[in-house]
Amino acid sequence: MSTEMSYTETRRDSVCEGLNTDVTEGPPPLSDEDLRLAATYVNDARNGCRGNFKNDPKSVRLYNLYNHPAFFWTSHVAVGVLISLVLFEDPAVPSIRLDYWITMCVELLCVGLIFSRLAHQGVFSSEENFWRSKRRLPFLIILLLTLVDMVLYVILSEIGVTSVRFSRPLRPLLLLCMDRAKQLRAVFKNILLTLPDIITVLTLFLLSVAFFALMALKIFQNRRNLVNYSDGQPYMHNYLDTFFHLYVLVTTANFPDVMMPAFDYNAWFTLFFIIYLIICLYLFMSICLATIYNNFKEHLKEYVEDSVREKQDNLQLAFDILKVETGHGEKLLPKSRWMSLMRTVHPSRLDLEHSLLWDVLANKHTGYISKSEFFHVANLLDIQVLEVKDREPEFQRWFPRCYTSKASRLIRKTVANSCFSRFFRYFIDLAVVANAVCIALDEEDFEWFFMALFVFEILLKFYVFGLKKFFHSAMNMFDFVLIVAALVINVLELAWTSISNQTGALDFLLVLRLLRLVRLVYAIERFRIVLKTISSIGRSLLTYGGVLFVFFYIFAIIGMEAFSGKIIPEPVLANRTQNQPILCGNPKLNGTQFAMNRYCNNNFNDILHSFVVLFELMVVNQWHVLAEGFVAVTHQAARIYFIVYHLLVVILVLNIFSAFILELFMLEYTMSKEPAERRESIIERRITVMGLDEDESTYLNDLENEETDTNIRGGRRPGQSPAMRFRLPRGANKVEELLQKMYEIEREEDKSDV
Amino acid sequence: MSTEMSYTETRRDSVCEGLNTDVTEGPPPLSDEDLRLAATYVNDARNGCRGNFKNDPKSVRLYNLYNHPAFFWTSHVAVGVLISLVLFEDPAVPSIRLDYWITMCVELLCVGLIFSRLAHQGVFSSEENFWRSKRRLPFLIILLLTLVDMVLYVILSEIGVTSVRFSRPLRPLLLLCMDRAKQLRAVFKNILLTLPDIITVLTLFLLSVAFFALMALKIFQNRRNLVNYSDGQPYMHNYLDTFFHLYVLVTTANFPDVMMPAFDYNAWFTLFFIIYLIICLYLFMSICLATIYNNFKEHLKEYVEDSVREKQDNLQLAFDILKVETGHGEKLLPKSRWMSLMRTVHPSRLDLEHSLLWDVLANKHTGYISKSEFFHVANLLDIQVLEVKDREPEFQRWFPRCYTSKASRLIRKTVANSCFSRFFRYFIDLAVVANAVCIALDEEDFEWFFMALFVFEILLKFYVFGLKKFFHSAMNMFDFVLIVAALVINVLELAWTSISNQTGALDFLLVLRLLRLVRLVYAIERFRIVLKTISSIGRSLLTYGGVLFVFFYIFAIIGMEAFSGKIIPEPVLANRTQNQPILCGNPKLNGTQFAMNRYCNNNFNDILHSFVVLFELMVVNQWHVLAEGFVAVTHQAARIYFIVYHLLVVILVLNIFSAFILELFMLEYTMSKEPAERRESIIERRITVMGLDEDESTYLNDLENEETDTNIRGGRRPGQSPAMRFRLPRGANKVEELLQKMYEIEREEDKSDV
Repeated sequence: MSTEMSYTETRRDSVCEGLNTDVTEGPPPLSDEDLRLAATYVNDARNGCRGNFKNDPKSVRLYNLYNHPAFFWTSHVAVGVLISLVLFEDPAVPSIRLDYWITMCVELLCVGLIFSRLAHQGVFSSEENFWRSKRRLPFLIILLLTLVDMVLYVILSEIGVTSVRFSRPLRPLLLLCMDRAKQLRAVFKNILLTLPDIITVLTLFLLSVAFFALMALKIFQNRRNLVNYSDGQPYMHNYLDTFFHLYVLVTTANFPDVMMPAFDYNAWFTLFFIIYLIICLYLFMSICLATIYNNFKEHLKEYVEDSVREKQDNLQLAFDILKVETGHGEKLLPKSRWMSLMRTVHPSRLDLEHSLLWDVLANKHTGYISKSEFFHVANLLDIQVLEVKDREPEFQRWFPRCYTSKASRLIRKTVANSCFSRFFRYFIDLAVVANAVCIALDEEDFEWFFMALFVFEILLKFYVFGLKKFFHSAMNMFDFVLIVAALVINVLELAWTSISNQTGALDFLLVLRLLRLVRLVYAIERFRIVLKTISSIGRSLLTYGGVLFVFFYIFAIIGMEAFSGKIIPEPVLANRTQNQPILCGNPKLNGTQFAMNRYCNNNFNDILHSFVVLFELMVVNQWHVLAEGFVAVTHQAARIYFIVYHLLVVILVLNIFSAFILELFMLEYTMSKEPAERRESIIERRITVMGLDEDESTYLNDLENEETDTNIRGGRRPGQSPAMRFRLPRGANKVEELLQKMYEIEREEDKSDV
Repeated sequence: MSTEMSYTETRRDSVCEGLNTDVTEGPPPLSDEDLRLAATYVNDARNGCRGNFKNDPKSVRLYNLYNHPAFFWTSHVAVGVLISLVLFEDPAVPSIRLDYWITMCVELLCVGLIFSRLAHQGVFSSEENFWRSKRRLPFLIILLLTLVDMVLYVILSEIGVTSVRFSRPLRPLLLLCMDRAKQLRAVFKNILLTLPDIITVLTLFLLSVAFFALMALKIFQNRRNLVNYSDGQPYMHNYLDTFFHLYVLVTTANFPDVMMPAFDYNAWFTLFFIIYLIICLYLFMSICLATIYNNFKEHLKEYVEDSVREKQDNLQLAFDILKVETGHGEKLLPKSRWMSLMRTVHPSRLDLEHSLLWDVLANKHTGYISKSEFFHVANLLDIQVLEVKDREPEFQRWFPRCYTSKASRLIRKTVANSCFSRFFRYFIDLAVVANAVCIALDEEDFEWFFMALFVFEILLKFYVFGLKKFFHSAMNMFDFVLIVAALVINVLELAWTSISNQTGALDFLLVLRLLRLVRLVYAIERFRIVLKTISSIGRSLLTYGGVLFVFFYIFAIIGMEAFSGKIIPEPVLANRTQNQPILCGNPKLNGTQFAMNRYCNNNFNDILHSFVVLFELMVVNQWHVLAEGFVAVTHQAARIYFIVYHLLVVILVLNIFSAFILELFMLEYTMSKEPAERRESIIERRITVMGLDEDESTYLNDLENEETDTNIRGGRRPGQSPAMRFRLPRGANKVEELLQKMYEIEREEDKSDV
């Protein structure tokens, strides 16, 4: 992330020098402190956070120190370690178990680090601001509870009483309190705001289930000749069981088994189940999704509005410090102050670059940056700036004569030129298919040939495009990693034959070789669009991964406290006969579906196994078999754990995830219908108009032009700093950017209406 | 439906009389033929269809005859009978099997009737129009194919060769060709239009599955010590099986069983399955839904636009016939022609009513109906008109003195007045709960008491509200049906004790008694909103039910041809021991999960059983067990049938259904945010402004006012025809109306922008 706030003493001197030499006339130079404050606001705007620091220089310095990568990452690592302690604490992953005093010491250290960060925050923020933030208090409470819990546990275990570490499920909540977990917090806030609406629907749904359960009980209870379930359990014999079976039926996990005894008795009874499923599954579950989608859309818009407002508030504050009043009473930002600000924000960059940014932002006529233009500075700073000379292939720089020779040009045409390159690409794609066929047929003989071919392809691309350009393409990067990793493993395998007996390495090699097939998908235009959408979702998927992780962690810890050690996997025997049940070390499992399906490995004995079980529960199928297994070894009440998990994770979180993907697709679709110039933000448009963007087609033009005039490139475009180019993101890559663009378009429309 | 086109000879005379007596001055009266043509256009606008009839009087008369209920329903019944023939044809439902010559005769009759309707159409439409409609040709082809098929079948079966009735799967397509199946056709068109986009995603998805299958095969194939599945099948041993297992995994139906052998071998192999599910289930299936939703939304808008345009085209044609040019060159509709038109459209209604409609539509200043006002006539005619005297309770009319007595007023206040009635309602709701508790506890003693109470409640409501008002509420109707049915069964049970031994009647009684609980849900405001939304979906659900029926029917016929008689249910024995497999009359099923789960009743032996199996396949869970069962008794290729079914019905149709519900919720939500006066259409606004709507609160006001002046009601409102009231739909009840309103709002916005 862009946390390059490396504002050190030595740098500051050079900034002052720069200021003094640069500003010979015009507005008076700003003080160091004001500049630092403005730079802090700009950085906050870029990071999308709101530093509640006091305005005095000491607090500002402390706040910048607070955002220093070293401090920032230390606290994040501490939270990470704290969360991953569960791997080592009892019930631990067997091979890496640690004694409790070791984990306790580490935990104490982590809590101390996190606490010190909170204290750091307390120093630079005003007392009022400190407590106003909604996450401070829970943060502090969790830390205190953890300490209390640790002390209690040590005391109790010294006395010899086994106790429960009740603070452990709270640990993932610390993730939510972290500074940059804004999106994670947003999703949780979204879930909380959706709750009231969804609870109405869910209550109605649960009442329906209860109603149908009563009906089923009354219809089937006293019926003679009704057979039992195929696993021997009695059919609909008491209310709680019937309710649970019908609840499971909504998840479809026990269909049609739950219907079969009634079906065998009388075919018309199937109508009961069909009506039930239509009402409770198809209708209610669709309504759940609709309700969640509805709420999600609203709250997403609010979130984006808040983000934009926060960013603008920060930039407004920075602008208020930097502005100069002109003759006409307008408040504008002159170039001298812009340069000083940029030197403070990005001390490592060249003045040329700052100047380029100025050219993009400033108004041509007035020669100043207005407030509305300044509001784009956060986005502008996030666009990568490249030097043109970086874009020349290394070979061109190293052996210019050889590179521009006739033979070389022919090679370059073959690889890069649109017409020839197609055949080159087809040839490679064909080789990939042939390779996959060989793998499928277990033909190992040609492997080295294919390997050589792919290595040759990569080297050729290096030569033609140069390293930088090669690695800019995600697909090339992907190819490169696959080939190099495969090469390394192959070589190692040759060197030490012992490795070839180790299956892990061979499996990995196989996966690497098969993954090459993915590039074929990329070769087809229609597929590429779908893949691009998926990859644009990618980053936000991580947020949802985070949300799921928090839920998984909490449920895993509770599950481990309740169920660990109750089910013990038996050694795997290949010669087990069919249908020979396994009791998973617990005779209570005798006769259950859990034992018959050999689910012993689905247990809560350590955090990794717990996560697998929770994933299985999330996929829903057979979750009742798992639930009944754990009920058999504990108590009927264990069903509540599984039902609550289903309601929270499957119905709530997964539907919010679906809502997110739906909304994203609708956004991309709406965006794609907008005209191109509206899809670009204002600064992107300016950059394009000024010819300062890095154009993909330039390379091929270069190749053509080279033949007539090798030096024409520099002067070909009217850019003012031809040695540098902006690398504009093609297609909105980040979901947030997409959303903000959408929002800005809407706002512009509102304005134009007025 | 509003197909009251009872345009007969006798009526026409009266219309002419009306015309002649009414129009003494003003524009010249229209000829009968012109009036009839205009009325036909108005009716077409109301029915949302486009009669491609020629303009000459004979064709118009034929077209009206074509729309006559008798002809209309005959052809619909013929299609219905043709479709339901499958119940009697081999393989028939056992108890109602008919010989093939009987079904053949019925089929021939039906085909003849349908064909004659097509011929009827051919007579009144111009040749060009007849063939331009996209559904004529397929309609004709299906009928011809049916005839060819019948002839072939008869010949072959007389020779003794068993053949396949290949035209049977085509039968439900006739439903699509019916005149009023517009919505059904729209959904199918939507499916067709969505196909190209979804096919890209699905191909990519299938390629991913194929890719993962290759990977799984290579990883697990040659691994020793890897156990078999718990049912003894070898684990990932050939490509086709692996592909199928992974395809099933996307439907989650075999999770976690498909993972367990690998999990037992090495816990890290779970990662393979988790990554697979994240990519192919959570990502691709969400993208499928998003793609379908995206397309659906677009096409729905087009459909509504087309409908509105068609309606306006029809009304435009009618207006062109009726219009009179005024002095200013404006084209307007005078009252005399309006009355003539209405008498032709609705010969059975009173002139007073036509006059009321005129008051609503016509411009106060000009005294004419303009074209844009005329465009609302179709909607206006669909609003129910009530006579005020209908709204008086019967008792008031029959015994006015008794009804307005003091004791009677007290009763009426208790039942209807807002303050007292709440306690009355609470009391009845409490009784319903108590009744349910009694049922749950099998306390039969109080049943007669509860029954008496509920009957008393209904009688009381009859007295207070009157029959008409009572039955206008869907909830009252529901109560009434439940109580009366229960009463009838109870009385019959008393009369013939033999019935009490028949379980069917008792089950029905039980269900009736439990259904009373539904009214409790209606008592809570938040629940009522959800229920109202569901009931507003109701009608459109039927359309989707129709779509599913078409798919079910086609797949059922194919399934019966392929699988009927292969699986024979065994007699049910209550004393079967656990795990004793049943072979369903086919030794090939030995050892399959199908037999172990006792799925013998899930067969394709007749259409009803086929539908149950297809429903089970739609619910998805255990579908692989069903599929493997049918594969075991036939051939591996049978898997294709089940995969195609899953792709078409579950992924395509069910997602379109979800898209529909999502869109509907979004619409209702957007509508609810609009201000009230925009939610109403223009005519609804006019009716409200003119005080002509039937106000729910009127009744209670009446009760209050009655005490001071019994005759005040008539003059209380400024309505011009106080003896009649419009019954405005509260909340848009029909989805189409909602959509059209949305569309009209959007169009108005567009106009106001310009």
